Amino acid sequence: MNEKQPCITLLTDYGDESGFVGTLHLVAFGIAPRTTVIDLDHSVPAGDVRLGALRLERLARFLPTGVHVAIVDPGVGGTRRPIAIRAADQVFVGPDNGLLLWGAEFFGSIDVAVVLDKEEYFLEGRARTFDGRDIFVPVAARLVEGTRLEEVGSTIEPVTLVRLERPVVRHQPDGSLEAEVLQVDGFGNVQLSADASDAGELRLRVGERLVVERGSNEVTARYGSAYADVEVGEVVVLIDSDAQLAYSVNGGRAEELMPVELGDLVTIRRRN
Amino acid sequence: MNEKQPCITLLTDYGDESGFVGTLHLVAFGIAPRTTVIDLDHSVPAGDVRLGALRLERLARFLPTGVHVAIVDPGVGGTRRPIAIRAADQVFVGPDNGLLLWGAEFFGSIDVAVVLDKEEYFLEGRARTFDGRDIFVPVAARLVEGTRLEEVGSTIEPVTLVRLERPVVRHQPDGSLEAEVLQVDGFGNVQLSADASDAGELRLRVGERLVVERGSNEVTARYGSAYADVEVGEVVVLIDSDAQLAYSVNGGRAEELMPVELGDLVTIRRRN
Amino acid sequence: MNEKQPCITLLTDYGDESGFVGTLHLVAFGIAPRTTVIDLDHSVPAGDVRLGALRLERLARFLPTGVHVAIVDPGVGGTRRPIAIRAADQVFVGPDNGLLLWGAEFFGSIDVAVVLDKEEYFLEGRARTFDGRDIFVPVAARLVEGTRLEEVGSTIEPVTLVRLERPVVRHQPDGSLEAEVLQVDGFGNVQLSADASDAGELRLRVGERLVVERGSNEVTARYGSAYADVEVGEVVVLIDSDAQLAYSVNGGRAEELMPVELGDLVTIRRRN
Repeated sequence: MNEKQPCITLLTDYGDESGFVGTLHLVAFGIAPRTTVIDLDHSVPAGDVRLGALRLERLARFLPTGVHVAIVDPGVGGTRRPIAIRAADQVFVGPDNGLLLWGAEFFGSIDVAVVLDKEEYFLEGRARTFDGRDIFVPVAARLVEGTRLEEVGSTIEPVTLVRLERPVVRHQPDGSLEAEVLQVDGFGNVQLSADASDAGELRLRVGERLVVERGSNEVTARYGSAYADVEVGEVVVLIDSDAQLAYSVNGGRAEELMPVELGDLVTIRRRN
Repeated sequence: MNEKQPCITLLTDYGDESGFVGTLHLVAFGIAPRTTVIDLDHSVPAGDVRLGALRLERLARFLPTGVHVAIVDPGVGGTRRPIAIRAADQVFVGPDNGLLLWGAEFFGSIDVAVVLDKEEYFLEGRARTFDGRDIFVPVAARLVEGTRLEEVGSTIEPVTLVRLERPVVRHQPDGSLEAEVLQVDGFGNVQLSADASDAGELRLRVGERLVVERGSNEVTARYGSAYADVEVGEVVVLIDSDAQLAYSVNGGRAEELMPVELGDLVTIRRRN
Repeated sequence: MNEKQPCITLLTDYGDESGFVGTLHLVAFGIAPRTTVIDLDHSVPAGDVRLGALRLERLARFLPTGVHVAIVDPGVGGTRRPIAIRAADQVFVGPDNGLLLWGAEFFGSIDVAVVLDKEEYFLEGRARTFDGRDIFVPVAARLVEGTRLEEVGSTIEPVTLVRLERPVVRHQPDGSLEAEVLQVDGFGNVQLSADASDAGELRLRVGERLVVERGSNEVTARYGSAYADVEVGEVVVLIDSDAQLAYSVNGGRAEELMPVELGDLVTIRRRN
């Protein structure tokens, strides 16, 4: 059905304030007016490059062919390189701080990487604090209009790209699993860094009783596959829609039951 | 002017966090790349099915011909049915929990209703907690591309669809009106469950003095037809742009003057 | 590249609640279904006409040819005039309260101004509290579809349009600069009413030590051109991406270091 009409996608930590996102749309439309621009997510916490990278990676399987701009860029205006990279027929544009790599590698190894050093593709009157507007989106719009990747920058070795550490997941000798809190969504569901295959090693059965521990706090839970597998107000540990291990309160907010911060270590173990 | 180019609309309780809305757009574009997708409202309070249903009903008169996806779905993954229903040339897709019915019936009685039980129209690798991504939007995109409603599911009797109770509106013997707080908008305006015809029965005149009561609190107000009909800082009771009875502070926030919660009963009466 | 395919842009104080923005999109699509509608910014603080006007002015240099709707309209339903104005090939639609003028004048002097008094171009069943839906967007969509500006209203003299006072910027005898806080963005950066040319008069050098004062509070800072010009946690005074003077904390939030409100007067001076 999709005749490979390429799109531009945007993932940033801009939030919904101050018109930053609107500015990106203006610049994209100014160069590539017939291209659909899709807002993936602008709610990455400010400066949280790793969470941005993880969200881009999770969305990768839904990405149509196109040019994908991601901007979580606390080093803007400093020495980090602006880059564009290609894997299969997907192109990713953004800062070289690890943000793009996991999402791109979903499609295969990086075929071409360039540093964006050709000022003729930048917006005129470039500022030093808004590369999204002045470099990343203008370049992305040129690429979607047909400019070749090798034209918009100088080729670099993919092996030189900055690569982030994966989040912690530890299988403990007692059969429990320790993982990081990756995010808490708008419904209060807590997503952990363990994925479906980590969970598979625990060989949990639906209905089995578990304990979710953070520091000296803990809540009891049951393993399930949907919120409705536990009573309203009870905690369910499940594989969420990102294929990550998560816990939720049916009809409630898990984060209110036991407050957590991003990056906290949480342990999931069988209840004795 | 509109040559009946169909669109997809989205109304959810996803908020602007976590990329859920972006994911719906990706899935829609992947199947129906030339279709305009319009975000109606993603600010329905989490799980508030009735308010979602009321907002969809109010927006109905502005809906272009198309496929309208609404998702406020606390029972996702449980036994509630995923459905699509048609009234006149409008199709609504979402959970069978009463969310869709009032909006659809704005266009006439339900001609066809189907339960979405054909997995070939779902996204591959369906999770049990994100039917918006895995069922509702994929089906909506197929429908907008021309697949017949009867193909995407098994026909059910419209009379079996879940129907919600309408909000409370009570005309009291003393000539006052009791109604529920339906919503407080971003400007602090408080919208009640009484509509223009309920208000009409009160035979209020512009400038007439009123009392707005909640429990033991009350504020004095005047009846009007625009904010500017009262002085800055004063309360005006009016028919709002949804044709509902509401009260507002000219240049201020009515909810700050007298705190209210959704569902609170408020009484409007003439001041003696 | 852009073959002058006109767009509609929207800038409002509607926030992301209650479906107001979605309603504007529905109305625009109903009249002009093939036109791209770009959300510039819906985060103008409620009723802050001057900040809305300043944001529209800053975005002006990125505006593609089109019809630009701006709505920050505390006087809706009162005596203020609904207008449309043209400068060069750009048209602006909104309330006559000063909101549109600075943005329009970026393109040149106002060639034509009309008051929107032709009800046949309004939405049927007009309310008195939602001119965005009932007047501004319907008229904008007609204009983008080719209706002439002179048709949708009665011509008025541009000199009669409401014009706002510019924000305060004062060069003090001691060489310091006093300016208003215009906005605090999602990253906590504080933007002032002084622009690059005001700052130029101070002849600051990169690395020079400064003091940022508000009332009896002050923080020390350095002049720079990017966040990374100071250490993490330090304050940098710079020309921001809107070409305005601003101060920021590298890797932090300037507003947390020294709380400010919109409109506060801040003084920037050399540190002795």
